[in-house]
Amino acid sequence: MIGIDWGTSSFRAWRIEADGSIADRISAPRGILTVEPGAFPTVLDEMIGPWLRAGEDLVLVCGMAGSRQGWKEAAYLPCPADARALAGALTPVDFPTARVLLVPGLSCRDENGVPEVMRGEETKILGLLDRLPAGRSLVLSPGSHSKWATVEDGTVLRFVTQFTGEAFATLSGNTILARTLDRGAPEDAAAFEDGLARARQPGGLLHHLFGQRARFLFGELTEAASASYLSGMLLGHEVAATLPEGTTQVVLVGDGAAMGRYARALRHFGVSTTEVTEDAAAAGLFRIAASLGAAA
Amino acid sequence: MIGIDWGTSSFRAWRIEADGSIADRISAPRGILTVEPGAFPTVLDEMIGPWLRAGEDLVLVCGMAGSRQGWKEAAYLPCPADARALAGALTPVDFPTARVLLVPGLSCRDENGVPEVMRGEETKILGLLDRLPAGRSLVLSPGSHSKWATVEDGTVLRFVTQFTGEAFATLSGNTILARTLDRGAPEDAAAFEDGLARARQPGGLLHHLFGQRARFLFGELTEAASASYLSGMLLGHEVAATLPEGTTQVVLVGDGAAMGRYARALRHFGVSTTEVTEDAAAAGLFRIAASLGAAA
Repeated sequence: MIGIDWGTSSFRAWRIEADGSIADRISAPRGILTVEPGAFPTVLDEMIGPWLRAGEDLVLVCGMAGSRQGWKEAAYLPCPADARALAGALTPVDFPTARVLLVPGLSCRDENGVPEVMRGEETKILGLLDRLPAGRSLVLSPGSHSKWATVEDGTVLRFVTQFTGEAFATLSGNTILARTLDRGAPEDAAAFEDGLARARQPGGLLHHLFGQRARFLFGELTEAASASYLSGMLLGHEVAATLPEGTTQVVLVGDGAAMGRYARALRHFGVSTTEVTEDAAAAGLFRIAASLGAAA
Repeated sequence: MIGIDWGTSSFRAWRIEADGSIADRISAPRGILTVEPGAFPTVLDEMIGPWLRAGEDLVLVCGMAGSRQGWKEAAYLPCPADARALAGALTPVDFPTARVLLVPGLSCRDENGVPEVMRGEETKILGLLDRLPAGRSLVLSPGSHSKWATVEDGTVLRFVTQFTGEAFATLSGNTILARTLDRGAPEDAAAFEDGLARARQPGGLLHHLFGQRARFLFGELTEAASASYLSGMLLGHEVAATLPEGTTQVVLVGDGAAMGRYARALRHFGVSTTEVTEDAAAAGLFRIAASLGAAA
């Protein structure tokens, strides 16, 4: 089979053997934002044509390709949901030479009834089930919108989204804080820890943001340290608001520098982490495909 | 005397009689950002030349004209501070035909030692002292960075800044929320109240921001209502984080639509408000001038 994680800005595909091992992989900057309306089949063939002509006939696609802005909308599946439920809710799309199916995202409601959605992360979470301890686990997928999923016995029970990555981008790029913040500076571990500690003080995030400005004016924060300080503050607020009491272990899934920052933020709160960075989406797509027969 | 509130984007001046009454006023879009380096005396003469030639010889200037980016830096005066302390810390600038003095801003430290600054608001606060009840009062000045000042017996004891206005501007203008938010829609009182109520639920501001996106995706929030909802959420977080327990009354000083929004947000938290919208800066500048003799 072929598994694809087709996101907003990137396209990643894996050719997966019948035993789940990965035979080949490709990655390209061909996210859905680069695809003209109606051109999804053409781009798919450009990307994985050789694998198709070598005989692959099942393609599972997760990520934003299944959104309203993508190939076709694959409606969100409400939690709790497992691989079998996702396999039973795949959305087929027209493609001449293979069976192409879009994985739906997941939805749930928070304790106050406000909706939650994820798209793409559900597949990565399924891909790391083998690495989770028995019982209930907390899985965190960093990103522009980070996802904190509660998983038990192969089922995603519920999840919480935090807007932290996007908040960092706009606060560090478009506000008065941007004027005295060197976005190109290397990460400053001490400033990041200062930011984490600041998040645990009273006054609220909006007060803490102004404090960053005032600290700079008083010579207590440098331009080079400001991005790390802001990142620490925001991650600290996220973790403080989201981490269930008594949590001692979180599994992080993803890649890039955010993984390390989240690991350090969680350690600051006394939580140890396991990091899964490789091919979690591929493993998840394989797991969903394996459930196809059972769900059909 | 002449009093001036010379801010980032606007210039407001009052000709004030010896008894404190206002004889004349002008307002122009000549904030410090429009003034070339070295051109402050020229612009001042353009603005208030007729009053000077009519015999006025004392000019007090508050606001960003006293910042590093302004005419000359008038260093922040630490709290607690009253009119007499400000009068004793004025910064003179060179001007040929009158005595021109810049009012310093105020600074303090929050309970964790992080600095706070204001510039311009201190003068408005002094200007409404006559309207405050005896004892301790809470005065709130809305703005890009709102200021919550604790005032007692004519003295600003301390204050707290919240980044709310600027956070609203960038979240509503530069994030994924902007794509489904009509900034030109009229205020929606029900959506604003929904946002206030949301801010009092658990999960944290960063979670609530994503919830706005998800509510739109699920058809539970319209583009027309989104700006009011976001505004309510942010103001709700600000008030919840800042309002001292047991507060029943807040005095609002300023102008524009933000005054009404803050009044509604405070009412939501069971607090009644008094709104002072007119010429508070003029009254404050007069009060500082009246203290000049005593401080000299």
